[in-house]
Amino acid sequence: MADLPEQITTLIKQLAKLPGVGQRSAQRLAFHILKMSDSDTQAFINAVDSAKKKLIKCSICGGITDIEPCAICSSEKRKNGLLCVVADPKDVFVLEGMHEFSGQYHVLGGTLSPMDGVTPKDLNIDSLIKRVKSGEIKEVILATNPDVAGEATASYLCDVIKPLGVRVTRLAYGIPMGSNLEFIDPLTLSMAIEGRRDI
Amino acid sequence: MADLPEQITTLIKQLAKLPGVGQRSAQRLAFHILKMSDSDTQAFINAVDSAKKKLIKCSICGGITDIEPCAICSSEKRKNGLLCVVADPKDVFVLEGMHEFSGQYHVLGGTLSPMDGVTPKDLNIDSLIKRVKSGEIKEVILATNPDVAGEATASYLCDVIKPLGVRVTRLAYGIPMGSNLEFIDPLTLSMAIEGRRDI
Repeated sequence: MADLPEQITTLIKQLAKLPGVGQRSAQRLAFHILKMSDSDTQAFINAVDSAKKKLIKCSICGGITDIEPCAICSSEKRKNGLLCVVADPKDVFVLEGMHEFSGQYHVLGGTLSPMDGVTPKDLNIDSLIKRVKSGEIKEVILATNPDVAGEATASYLCDVIKPLGVRVTRLAYGIPMGSNLEFIDPLTLSMAIEGRRDI
Repeated sequence: MADLPEQITTLIKQLAKLPGVGQRSAQRLAFHILKMSDSDTQAFINAVDSAKKKLIKCSICGGITDIEPCAICSSEKRKNGLLCVVADPKDVFVLEGMHEFSGQYHVLGGTLSPMDGVTPKDLNIDSLIKRVKSGEIKEVILATNPDVAGEATASYLCDVIKPLGVRVTRLAYGIPMGSNLEFIDPLTLSMAIEGRRDI
C-alpha cells in the first residue's frame, strides 16, 4: 500500500479498532466518510467529541449522564421504591428503550469474575447496599445477564441484599417472544417449563 | 429515552448513519467510544478530520490522494503502459492490496446506469480517452465489477477504446480461489467452463 495516501490507511486502522468492525468494513466505512459532506463529518466529529467531553458517571447510580446526579436519579417521579441493578451503563440504555420501567437504576460497572480478578469490592456494591439501607428502596430487581458471570453476581447480591429486608427479584427466564421452540436451547426450554404460569 | 443524556443518543444517531451499522451496532459502538481513552479518541477524531481535510481527487486518475498528482500517477516505475480502469476510488485500494499490479489506474467515479441518469459524460471517460490517446498506454484493463452496471460500462468502454488501437482486456470470470463448487452460482460456473485453460 506504499503508494496510497497515509491518511486513508490511518483512518481505516482507526475504524478497524472498533468492536465488530473488520478490515473490510473499516475500508467501506472509511470511503463512506470520504464521501460525506463537510457538515455531516463535522456533526459526526462533534457527536464523538461532546459525548466524550460532557458525559460523566452519575455519583449515585454509576450510569452515564451529562448532569450530576443523573436525570433518572434526580427525578421525583422515578422514586417509586424499585431499583433495577444492571452490570453496564449500556444496560440502562437498553431497559429505558422499553419505555416501561419507571424506577431507578444501579450500575455495577461489571460482573463478578474471580478468574479475571473481579471481586465484589471492584463493583459498585457498597453504594448499592448504602442505597438499599437508606430505606427508600422496596424491591431490588437483579437484571444482570443470564450467563455465568451475571448469574454469579445476581446470586451474590441476593445473599447480601435479602438480609436487609427488601424484596429481591430476578428477570424471568424463558422463551423470547417471537422465537420458535425449534431453535431454543434445552436449558432455556427447561427454564421456561419450570417457570410456567397459569393462564 | 427522555431521561437519557442527549449526547449519547446523538452519538448513536450519528453512528447509525454509517453503512452497515444498525441501531444495535451503533449502541455498541457508542458505548465503546465512551470507554476509549482520551488519546485514542483524539487519534480517532484526527484520523477522520485529516482524511477529510487532506485527501483530494488526483487530477490525472481521479483516485484519492494527498499530493497532486497522486503517488501512483507521478511514479516513473508505474509507467509501464498498463492502465487499470475501475469504478470507484475504493477499488484502487482493493487492487493495491494485492501488491501485484504495477501499472496505473483510472477511476471512473461510478458506472453507467441510464436508469439512474448516469451517462458516459457523468463519468471520467473523456480524461480516460485523452490518456489512451497520449500514446503511453499499451493495454487498458477494464476492472469494473462483474454486475449489470459494471458489465455495461466495460462493454461501452471497450467500444470506445478499441478503435484507438490499444489492447483492451477484462478481468477473468471464474470460480474464486478457496471456494467450493457446490456454492458457486450456475452463471459463474458456466463462465468458468467457457474460460477454461489448458494445464
